[in-house]
Amino acid sequence: MHESLLSHDRARALFAPASWVGAMIRFEVALAEAEAGQGVIPASAAAALAGAAAGVALDAGAIARAAAADGNPAIPFLRDFTAAIDDQQARAFLHWGATSQDLLDSALMLLLRDGLDLVEAGLQDLGDALAGLASRERATPIAARTLLQQALPISLGVKAAFWLDPFVRHRARLAETRRRVLVVALGGAAGTHAAIGAKGPAVAAALARILGLGVPVAPWHGARDRIAEAAFLLAAVTGSAAKIARDLMLLMQTEVGEAASGRAGGSSTLPHKRNPTRALVAPAAHRIAAPLATSALLALEGEHERAAGAWHGEWPVLPRLIELAALALEATREALDDVVWDRARMRANLDLSQGLVFAENLAMTLAPTLGRARAKALVERLAGEVRASGRRLPALAAESAEVRAVLDAPALASAFDLGSCLGACDQIVDAVTGAWRQPAP
Amino acid sequence: MHESLLSHDRARALFAPASWVGAMIRFEVALAEAEAGQGVIPASAAAALAGAAAGVALDAGAIARAAAADGNPAIPFLRDFTAAIDDQQARAFLHWGATSQDLLDSALMLLLRDGLDLVEAGLQDLGDALAGLASRERATPIAARTLLQQALPISLGVKAAFWLDPFVRHRARLAETRRRVLVVALGGAAGTHAAIGAKGPAVAAALARILGLGVPVAPWHGARDRIAEAAFLLAAVTGSAAKIARDLMLLMQTEVGEAASGRAGGSSTLPHKRNPTRALVAPAAHRIAAPLATSALLALEGEHERAAGAWHGEWPVLPRLIELAALALEATREALDDVVWDRARMRANLDLSQGLVFAENLAMTLAPTLGRARAKALVERLAGEVRASGRRLPALAAESAEVRAVLDAPALASAFDLGSCLGACDQIVDAVTGAWRQPAP
Amino acid sequence: MHESLLSHDRARALFAPASWVGAMIRFEVALAEAEAGQGVIPASAAAALAGAAAGVALDAGAIARAAAADGNPAIPFLRDFTAAIDDQQARAFLHWGATSQDLLDSALMLLLRDGLDLVEAGLQDLGDALAGLASRERATPIAARTLLQQALPISLGVKAAFWLDPFVRHRARLAETRRRVLVVALGGAAGTHAAIGAKGPAVAAALARILGLGVPVAPWHGARDRIAEAAFLLAAVTGSAAKIARDLMLLMQTEVGEAASGRAGGSSTLPHKRNPTRALVAPAAHRIAAPLATSALLALEGEHERAAGAWHGEWPVLPRLIELAALALEATREALDDVVWDRARMRANLDLSQGLVFAENLAMTLAPTLGRARAKALVERLAGEVRASGRRLPALAAESAEVRAVLDAPALASAFDLGSCLGACDQIVDAVTGAWRQPAP
Amino acid sequence: MHESLLSHDRARALFAPASWVGAMIRFEVALAEAEAGQGVIPASAAAALAGAAAGVALDAGAIARAAAADGNPAIPFLRDFTAAIDDQQARAFLHWGATSQDLLDSALMLLLRDGLDLVEAGLQDLGDALAGLASRERATPIAARTLLQQALPISLGVKAAFWLDPFVRHRARLAETRRRVLVVALGGAAGTHAAIGAKGPAVAAALARILGLGVPVAPWHGARDRIAEAAFLLAAVTGSAAKIARDLMLLMQTEVGEAASGRAGGSSTLPHKRNPTRALVAPAAHRIAAPLATSALLALEGEHERAAGAWHGEWPVLPRLIELAALALEATREALDDVVWDRARMRANLDLSQGLVFAENLAMTLAPTLGRARAKALVERLAGEVRASGRRLPALAAESAEVRAVLDAPALASAFDLGSCLGACDQIVDAVTGAWRQPAP
Repeated sequence: MHESLLSHDRARALFAPASWVGAMIRFEVALAEAEAGQGVIPASAAAALAGAAAGVALDAGAIARAAAADGNPAIPFLRDFTAAIDDQQARAFLHWGATSQDLLDSALMLLLRDGLDLVEAGLQDLGDALAGLASRERATPIAARTLLQQALPISLGVKAAFWLDPFVRHRARLAETRRRVLVVALGGAAGTHAAIGAKGPAVAAALARILGLGVPVAPWHGARDRIAEAAFLLAAVTGSAAKIARDLMLLMQTEVGEAASGRAGGSSTLPHKRNPTRALVAPAAHRIAAPLATSALLALEGEHERAAGAWHGEWPVLPRLIELAALALEATREALDDVVWDRARMRANLDLSQGLVFAENLAMTLAPTLGRARAKALVERLAGEVRASGRRLPALAAESAEVRAVLDAPALASAFDLGSCLGACDQIVDAVTGAWRQPAP
Repeated sequence: MHESLLSHDRARALFAPASWVGAMIRFEVALAEAEAGQGVIPASAAAALAGAAAGVALDAGAIARAAAADGNPAIPFLRDFTAAIDDQQARAFLHWGATSQDLLDSALMLLLRDGLDLVEAGLQDLGDALAGLASRERATPIAARTLLQQALPISLGVKAAFWLDPFVRHRARLAETRRRVLVVALGGAAGTHAAIGAKGPAVAAALARILGLGVPVAPWHGARDRIAEAAFLLAAVTGSAAKIARDLMLLMQTEVGEAASGRAGGSSTLPHKRNPTRALVAPAAHRIAAPLATSALLALEGEHERAAGAWHGEWPVLPRLIELAALALEATREALDDVVWDRARMRANLDLSQGLVFAENLAMTLAPTLGRARAKALVERLAGEVRASGRRLPALAAESAEVRAVLDAPALASAFDLGSCLGACDQIVDAVTGAWRQPAP
Repeated sequence: MHESLLSHDRARALFAPASWVGAMIRFEVALAEAEAGQGVIPASAAAALAGAAAGVALDAGAIARAAAADGNPAIPFLRDFTAAIDDQQARAFLHWGATSQDLLDSALMLLLRDGLDLVEAGLQDLGDALAGLASRERATPIAARTLLQQALPISLGVKAAFWLDPFVRHRARLAETRRRVLVVALGGAAGTHAAIGAKGPAVAAALARILGLGVPVAPWHGARDRIAEAAFLLAAVTGSAAKIARDLMLLMQTEVGEAASGRAGGSSTLPHKRNPTRALVAPAAHRIAAPLATSALLALEGEHERAAGAWHGEWPVLPRLIELAALALEATREALDDVVWDRARMRANLDLSQGLVFAENLAMTLAPTLGRARAKALVERLAGEVRASGRRLPALAAESAEVRAVLDAPALASAFDLGSCLGACDQIVDAVTGAWRQPAP
Repeated sequence: MHESLLSHDRARALFAPASWVGAMIRFEVALAEAEAGQGVIPASAAAALAGAAAGVALDAGAIARAAAADGNPAIPFLRDFTAAIDDQQARAFLHWGATSQDLLDSALMLLLRDGLDLVEAGLQDLGDALAGLASRERATPIAARTLLQQALPISLGVKAAFWLDPFVRHRARLAETRRRVLVVALGGAAGTHAAIGAKGPAVAAALARILGLGVPVAPWHGARDRIAEAAFLLAAVTGSAAKIARDLMLLMQTEVGEAASGRAGGSSTLPHKRNPTRALVAPAAHRIAAPLATSALLALEGEHERAAGAWHGEWPVLPRLIELAALALEATREALDDVVWDRARMRANLDLSQGLVFAENLAMTLAPTLGRARAKALVERLAGEVRASGRRLPALAAESAEVRAVLDAPALASAFDLGSCLGACDQIVDAVTGAWRQPAP
C-alpha cells in the first residue's frame, strides 16, 4: 500500500516476469547459435530454435509461480519453452550443456545491464542538476554547518559541488562495475563444461559476444563477488543521494528556511504543512538499501559448486537495489528541481550569531602576527564576550586593544567581509563541475 | 520471477492494498464510534459514517499508486473515502482529531495482528512436527556433530528436541510482543490530541477497545521500538527455522545420507539430482530477514514528533518480515514432513570412525579412577593410534594395559555400548516436548 | 585512537580477560559443588577444588592470547587452571561432564548479568532525567516538528515524555530478557549430559541455583536465540537513546537555538564553535549497534550440535553491544544534563511562521460548524495568503468573511491562544512519568 | 577474552594510538612543508616544525583517552603537540588552515594504506597457495556438490581455481581502491580553504605529493563514499575467504573425510576431536564484517559540511575491517596449508551413489541421438531404478534396451569413465591461474 513511495515503476518493469522470460529466451537462442558456431550442435538446430523462439509466447506469470515448487524459475521456463517448440531438433538441442544457474545468471546480467542504464541515467540527471546549481550559485553566500552548528560562510555553489563530488566517483565506479560484473554465465552443472567439453570456453566467449556481455575468466556459479560489487555500488549511490536529500530537508526546516518546496506535499490534518515528500524518499530508501548490501555479502559464503540457500537469498537483492537507487536518484533530483531557494534568508541566517560566523576569519587574520594558537585563544575570548553580552563580534573586536594592536580598521573590516571568507570556493566549484563534465570513463 | 521461491501468498495478501484499505476504513469507523461515545462528535455522524462505510468500494490500487505523490497512502485514501460518502455530517466528522500516521499505524497494527496469527500458526505447526519427531525418534541413535565433526552418539529424538527448544521461547516472545506491540495509534498531528483535547486519551482507549487492540501509555508517532521488537522476533523465528533447514540439508548430503527428500526438486541438467528445494528456503529467507532487522532498528532514530525518512523507510519492513517468517516456518515444516529418515545409515555413520565416536564415553568410564585429565590424555593417545593404524578403538583399548588396569571386560564393553552414551537424552526430550505442549502463555 | 569516544570503560572492564577468568573459575567451582550435591563426584573433590580456586592466580592475558591457537579460551584456561591446582582429586574431577561451550556460555551469562546491571542503571538514570524534565517543563510551549516542519505548539514536557515512553517498555523488556536469557549452560560435549547421565538435568539446576542463574529447559549449545534477544534489546536501547540525542542536536542548531550545550566541545579551527560532543555519541553508537544485531541473528543458523564459525562470530557481539548501550545511555544523559534550555527562543520560534503554527487549531475551531474537510480547505487558502502576502494568519483570519461567519472575536482569539493548543499534553506527561515511576516488573 | 580468535596483532598495531600519533605528526610536518612551498607560511616555520617533530615524544594513550571529552583525538593531539614544541614560530604556524577532520582523515589514509598493504600481502599469499593447489591437483577427481548433493566429477584443481577466481578481481579492485580512496584530506573548517584561500588546492596537491597520497577533486569532509568503498572491498575479501574455509570444513566432515586438519584443535571434553580451528575463523569474521559494511554505508548520509554522529560512527569501521580481512585471509591460508588431502576418499565418495554421479555424462552421451530432453528423461528413469533396487547405474544402463539402441559397449563404458567427465577443467585451471600470475594492475 505504502509501496509506491518506495517503488520505481520502470525499475520494477525491468525485472518483471516478462522481462526475465525474454532474457531467458535470448540466452537459449544465443547459446544455440554460439554452439552451432563452434560445431557443438547442428547449425540447423540453432536456426530452428531461433525461428521457434521468434514466435513463442510464454505465460511469464505461470512460470514465476511455478518457480517455488521447482526450486528455481529456469525449470518451469524450460518445460514451457520446450513445449512451445514444434521443431524436434530445436527441442533436442535446447539448453545444450547449460544448467539452470547459467540461464538465470546470464539472464540476470542482461536485466542488470538495463538496470544499470536506468541508474546511470538517473545519476547523470542528478549530477547535471547539481553541476548547474553549483555554477549558478557560486556567488550566493550560505552558512556552512559542521556538527549542525554554523561554522563559517561558504557559497551555495560549493555546497552543491560537495554534493556532486561523490557522483564523479560513482560514475567511474559504474563504468568499472559494468566491465567487471556484466559477464556471461556458462559452465554446465558443475561449472566445468562437462557436457560441452574442451570447447566450453570458446562457446562461452561466443555466447558473450552475441549477448554483448563480457567473458569471465571462469564460470562463476560459486563466486558471487560480482553481485556483491554491484549491490555495494547501488547502495552507495542511494546513500549519496540520501545525503543531499537530508541536507535539503535540513535547509527546509521552518527555522532555517533557506530552501522551500514548491509543490510540497500536504498533510491529512495540518492545513499549512508543506512536507518534503520527495526529499524524504532517498533517506527512506537508504535505510533499506544499506542493510541489503549485507545480504549481498552474505551470499559470498556459499557451499561448494552451487550454494544451498545463500544463492537463493541473493535473488531479490539486485532487483530491489536497482529500484531503490533509481528511485533515490530520481526523487532527489525532483526535490532539488522543486526547491525555491531563499537567498535573503541565507544572508539573514549568517547574521544570527552576532558575527561569530566570522570568528575563524578574524582569527586567521590575526594569526600571521600572533601565531595560530594565540589568535584562536584571543578570538575564543571575544566569542565568550559575545555570548555573555549579546553584543556583536565586530564591535567587540574593534574595542579590543589586542586586536587593534595587530589590525588596522580596513584589515578588521575585511575580516568581517563575506567575500574574504570564501577561500577556494570558486576553484572547488570549477574542479568538481569540470570533472563532472568530462566524458565518463 | 524468482520471487515465488521467497514469497508467501497468504502473507502477501494480508498486506495487499485492499487489506490496507479495509483496515483504514475500520479505523475511521471505529474512531467516529469512539469519539461519539465520548461526546466528541455527534452520535449521528458516527452512525452515518458506519452506514456509509458499509457500502463503500474504493479503488485500493489507485490509492496505493497515489501514495507516492501525496507522501503517504492516508491522504489519497481520505480523499477517495470522503468522496464516496454522501452523508454530509459523516464527511464533516471523518478522521476527526486524527493524523495520517494515526491512521497508518493503527491500520498496520490490525494487519500485523493477522500477520502474527499467520506466523503463530506456522510456528505451532512446525513445533508440533518437531515434538512428534522428538517423541518418535527418542530411541534412534545418530551422531552428534560439533564443528562439523562427529562427537558422540545422541538420539535423533534429542536432536529434534534441540530444534524445538527455541520455539518454546519464540512462542512466549510472540505472546509478549502481541501484548506490548499491538496497540492503537491516536494522537493527532503532533501526538498530543491537540484537536480532541483532554478527552483524547479516553477516545484512544475506547478506539482500542473497539478494534481489539491494546492501549498505549502515550501516542507513539516517534517511538518506533514496538515495530523494531516485532521485526526482531520475526527475523529470529526465521533464523531458528533456518537452523533446522540447514541441519536437514547437511544430513541430506550424499556422503551423510541420513535424511533424503521424498519429493525433492529436479535439476535442469542433472538427471539424478534430488535437490532440497524446500529446505533451502529458510536459509535463503534468513539472509534477507536478518539485515532487515537492522532497517527496523534504524527507524528508532527519527526526528522530533514525526520522522522525515526514517519512518518511511520502516514501511516495507514488517510486511516483508511477516512474509519471510511465515515462509521459513512453512517451508521448513514441509521439508521436515518430506524427509525420509535412513536409520541404518545413521548407525553406519556412527561406525565410520573406528569407534572414536565412543572416545569420550571411554574416557569418562576411566575418569572416576584416573581423573578426568589423565583419562582424557590416555584416550587421546589411543585415538592417535587408531588414526595411525586404521584399527578400531575397542580393540586397541582392550589391548591397553592402562585401560585393563581400570576396566574389566564388561565395563569396557559398556563403554562402547550405544545405550550407555545417551546420557539424559530422554529427559531432555521430555522436558522440551513437555514445555511445548503446555498452553502458550 | 578515536576509540575513547565510542568506549565505556566500566563496560569494557566487565568483559576484560580477568573478568572472564573469574567467571570461569566460579563456574568450575560451582559445577563441582553441584555435582557433589547430586552424588556425581566426591564431596571431597568439590571442597578441594573450592579451596584451590580461592588462592589461584591465573595469567588472564596469556589465556586470552592462547585462545586463537586452541580454538577457544576454555582450553588454555583449563590447562592453566589444572596446572595451578595441587590437589590431585580436585584436578581429577575438574570440569566433570562439562564441555568448553558450557564453560564459556555460563561465564558469558555471569558477565552479561553484570552488563545488564550496568545498562539498567544507565537506563534508569536517563529515564529519571527525562521524567524530571517532563514534569518540570510541562508548561513550556515549544513547536512540534513533523517531517522537520513546525506543526503546532506542544509542551517541552510532553516532548520529554515522548522521549521517555519507549524506555518504559525497554525496562520491561530488560526484566523479561533477564528471566529468559540469563540461564546456566551445561550439557557436555553434545548437550546431552552423556558423561553425567540421567543426573545431568539435576546437576544443571543445582549449578544454576549456586550461580544465581536460571535453569534452561534444555542445554542450548545450538540454540542461540537468547543471545540474539539480548543483542536486539541492547541495540534498541541504543537506538532510542540516539533518537533523543538526535533531537537535542536539532534543537541546538544555530538557527533553532532552543537548546545549547553548557560545556560543549571546542574545535581545532573554529574559535566560536560549541560542538555537541556528548549528543553525537549515541547516534554514532547506533550506526554500529544496529548492524551488530544482524551479526547476532546470523548466529542462529549454526550447524548441528555446535556451530563451526557461526558461534565464534557471535563472541564479540554482546560485549560490544553492552558497551555501546551503556555508552549511549550515559552520553545522552550527560548531554541532557548539560543542556541550557532557551524558553524565550522556543516562543520566538513559534512566532516564525506568521501564525501558521496555529493553523490546525483554527481549522479545528471552525470544523464543528463547517466540517473537517471544509474547515481545512478554508485554512489552507488562508495559509496560502499568508505565504503570498507575508501577513499574519490571525489578521487574515479576522478579515475573512467565511471565518467571521463562524467565529466571533473571543472564539477567534482562542484559536490563536497557545494554551488552547496543548490538547492532552499534561495527561500524557502524567501517564508516561507515572508508568516510569512504577516499580519495574 | 575470546578476542584473540578474531584478532590480528599486526593489523591492530597499525591502528594503535602510537600509529595514529605518528601519522598525525607526519601530516602536520608535511602540511607546513607544503604551505611553505606555496608561500603560505614562512619556510623557517616549516623547518622549525620538522625539527621539533623529529624529537617529540607524545603520550599516545593519554591523547586517545582525552578524545572522548574533546570530541575527537585531533584536539588533544594538537594541544600536546603544541606544548611539546619549543620553537615559537613552529607553534604559530602549526595546523595552519587545517581542521580536525583534515588531520584525522589524512592520518586515516596513511594508516589505511599500511592496512591495505597488509591485506594485499595476505591476499597474495592465499592466492598463491590456491594457484599452487589448482596446478598440483588438476588430475585429482573429486565430486562436485551442488545444493550439497553430489553432482558430477570435477578435479580438485578446478575446485581450487574456482576458489581463486574472485581473488583475481579482488586484487584488481584493491588497485582501483588504492587509486581512488587513498587521497589527502585538506579543506579547513568547512572544506573551502577559507583560511588558506585560493592557494588551498595547490597546498593540498603539494601535501599529497609529500605524503604519497592522491589528490582529491575536492575536500571530502562530507563525502564518505571512499570509506564505504574500502569497507565493501574488505568485507568482500573476508566473505570470499569464508567461502573457501566453509568448503574446507565441509570436506573435513567425518562423513566426507576428503580433507583433514593436520594440527587440528583439541576439545576440552572429547579426546578424539580434531577441530577445524583455523578454518572456522573466516566464516566467523564474515558474520561480523558483512554487517559492518552497512555501518560504513550509513555514514554516507551525514549532515551538511560535517556530520554530527554519522562521521563518528564511521571511525571504528575501517580499523576493524582491515583486521577481519587480514585475519580471514591468513587463517584461511593456514587452514589450507594444514590440510591433508585424502585422494582415496575422494574416489571412494565418487562411488557412493551407485554410479549416479555419472548420470549427466550418460545423458549427454545419449543426447545427440535422443535429444537432450528425452535423454534426460531416460536417465531419470534409470536413476529411479538405481534408488529403488540399490543396483548400479552402469549395470542398469547396460541392460536397458533403449540405451543399447543408441550406445555400443565402448561408448557406454566411456560414459562411466572419470576422464570423460572433466570437461574443460584443465582449461579453467589454466585460465584462472594464468590470470592470477599476471602482474596486478
